[in-house]
Amino acid sequence: MTHRIAIAPSGFKESLSAARVAEAIAVGVRRVIPDADLDLIPLVDGGEGTAEALALAGGGRLVPCTATGPVGDPVPSHFALLGGGTTPGPLTAVVEMAAVAGLALVPPGLRHPGATTTYGVGELIRAALDAGARRILIGCGDSGTSDGGAGALQALGARLTDRHGRELRRGGGALHELERIDPSGLDPRLARTELLVACNPYNVLCGKRGVARVFGPQKGATPAEVELLSAGLERWAAVLTRDLLPAVAPEPEKGPEPGSGPALATGVPLDLRTAPGTGASGGLGAGLAAVGARLLPRYDVLLDGLDLDARLARADFVITAEGALDHQTVRGKIPAEVARRAQASGVPVLVLAGTIGPGAQDVRAVGVDAYSAILPAPMTLVEAIGRSGELLADATERALRIMALGSRLGERAGRYAPSA
Amino acid sequence: MTHRIAIAPSGFKESLSAARVAEAIAVGVRRVIPDADLDLIPLVDGGEGTAEALALAGGGRLVPCTATGPVGDPVPSHFALLGGGTTPGPLTAVVEMAAVAGLALVPPGLRHPGATTTYGVGELIRAALDAGARRILIGCGDSGTSDGGAGALQALGARLTDRHGRELRRGGGALHELERIDPSGLDPRLARTELLVACNPYNVLCGKRGVARVFGPQKGATPAEVELLSAGLERWAAVLTRDLLPAVAPEPEKGPEPGSGPALATGVPLDLRTAPGTGASGGLGAGLAAVGARLLPRYDVLLDGLDLDARLARADFVITAEGALDHQTVRGKIPAEVARRAQASGVPVLVLAGTIGPGAQDVRAVGVDAYSAILPAPMTLVEAIGRSGELLADATERALRIMALGSRLGERAGRYAPSA
Repeated sequence: MTHRIAIAPSGFKESLSAARVAEAIAVGVRRVIPDADLDLIPLVDGGEGTAEALALAGGGRLVPCTATGPVGDPVPSHFALLGGGTTPGPLTAVVEMAAVAGLALVPPGLRHPGATTTYGVGELIRAALDAGARRILIGCGDSGTSDGGAGALQALGARLTDRHGRELRRGGGALHELERIDPSGLDPRLARTELLVACNPYNVLCGKRGVARVFGPQKGATPAEVELLSAGLERWAAVLTRDLLPAVAPEPEKGPEPGSGPALATGVPLDLRTAPGTGASGGLGAGLAAVGARLLPRYDVLLDGLDLDARLARADFVITAEGALDHQTVRGKIPAEVARRAQASGVPVLVLAGTIGPGAQDVRAVGVDAYSAILPAPMTLVEAIGRSGELLADATERALRIMALGSRLGERAGRYAPSA
Repeated sequence: MTHRIAIAPSGFKESLSAARVAEAIAVGVRRVIPDADLDLIPLVDGGEGTAEALALAGGGRLVPCTATGPVGDPVPSHFALLGGGTTPGPLTAVVEMAAVAGLALVPPGLRHPGATTTYGVGELIRAALDAGARRILIGCGDSGTSDGGAGALQALGARLTDRHGRELRRGGGALHELERIDPSGLDPRLARTELLVACNPYNVLCGKRGVARVFGPQKGATPAEVELLSAGLERWAAVLTRDLLPAVAPEPEKGPEPGSGPALATGVPLDLRTAPGTGASGGLGAGLAAVGARLLPRYDVLLDGLDLDARLARADFVITAEGALDHQTVRGKIPAEVARRAQASGVPVLVLAGTIGPGAQDVRAVGVDAYSAILPAPMTLVEAIGRSGELLADATERALRIMALGSRLGERAGRYAPSA
């Protein structure tokens, strides 16, 4: 049995951070291969837990901050500060949108994405500016909003009005009434600050695969609300393009490229409707792009400094994990990203999943060799979430023993029947 | 990847027969290894589905028969007839106790093992005698009773009375009132018939590991009821030994030994309290032994003619399965039996389980290399049972892909680093 194993999982939503997932997997591996050489690489995708994980990994700190939650009430939130002081590079803040406008902050009875707002995201950006950040990384994912970032722009000083000149009410459901945007009140510090949005490039604002259609239903929208949101985001893109794009600098001054991959868009995307990442977090990508933020493929930003490719290439095999493995996994989730990179080095990949849903098998096409569910017995989601660390360790052990069985057969074939 | 695979599963209780389980596993295997050479060996343990499976496998037929169910109402039941006519050997009946006194026939609200009866088992034995059977195989397992077989003996003509000379009421809860047994009315055909009880030898009637203590709670007994049942079965063993054993022949005439293993007891066990198998099906083993039945290790009887050891030895690996893998599995369940036999030939064993419970890991000590659960996501037991065929096929596919991953690593190690 092979011994160098990279453990590069996602966190499990509402349950375990990526670091805790990696530790639980390591416990299971060691039960089967006590002397395994393990490389723990907990990964984040910009969603829940991103600020905390990057603060931990980068020797930064979390700054607590109360801000407006997705349904309008103040919620305790936070952002991270990295660097500054003796660390080279500009003082960088990490604003995780899910920490102030995430779906988990929307009570189930209030899941109407037409009414939820990203206002708190703008407040966190302002707080980060107040703290002296010269570079702000905005993590997208796990959002409970669909307002195109309208709330965030309002919090940053833009004035959104309807055809009677009245301030637009909050939420994506009001965007179809938008008449004009007045950018004159926008926080002037934005122009001197590098805003980087870590996006899933698969998410676009409008069209058939637009964010309201793809994610509206899971945020609680009815089919009629999906149509209203889609129309509102079309209007949002049009007014942003007309009123806001000419007002911002086409390309802000910036430091060295973060991450290795190409930027999705520099300065302002050509088309706020369909440029990659414009649909990130219910369209927050589009809103922030219109005030000069750069939309970047999230892993290029978030994996910066991890040396992930080399670490995966050194392993005999890779274990990654995700709370739910389904048709969305191949559309830019962590296991798919890990598999794509591991496959480039010919390293096999095993995925452990809290839940396996429809379309999970698509991951085989992007380099996943095998996957397994962690549940040992019928139970509710709530129980599974409560026991996820233990279940994950046990499931890892079971999967490794199945691998060991296969390894034994393969070894036999390799030794005695090399032509098989 | 290796190609000769023996699929030797148990059925899944209240869900899939062993034959259906084997087919579902085969579906999953073929998705990964389309040209695999599969040997399907569905197995039964004497419990639910045994009569049907043996009728199918042996070219026999099921005889429908209404009899007294465990709570006293008539239930539609059946026994199997094998051989006779042009087939060599005596006409053999298979009476599956679960088909007339199984736990599944006791409505959840009526699960008081002090009140349930094996009366119907005696009626099925009489019906088999009426049909001309000269050899009757009684399958134990999945029982809902704890009457020591008292009901069966009553149905066969024995008279059980209390100290007032009144007929004892049905159920193990009355046995502590037993004063004497009058065997004079016992069906005289019993003396000319070979009765073979397929038992789990781990099940004994009395003592610390006695059947009331081990199985009473899962049949619905409260701690107080367990004590009452234990006392009743002690009394039962004493009166059976005093009143019945002298009345039956010590060793019935019999044909060749069924199966390969040694009989647990020939003629009458020396000690009805603790001889292996006396506790089978709530003590039915002891009751039948007292009228001349032989208690045999179930697999020696049930695997007769399957050539199981040779078929397992020919395989590159074995897949077995069980509805629930837990601490009881090593105590004589099918996966443990399969693993023990496969291990003797050095063939590795994978178990697929509907549910993994406490103590499952004990199976590794009896030759199981790895095991996996079939659930892909949180769900209720009812949903899992309803979808078990599909879940099993999918889980088999997932496990085989994990094995293939291991095989690839093992092959590499075998070819390039044989000293590893």
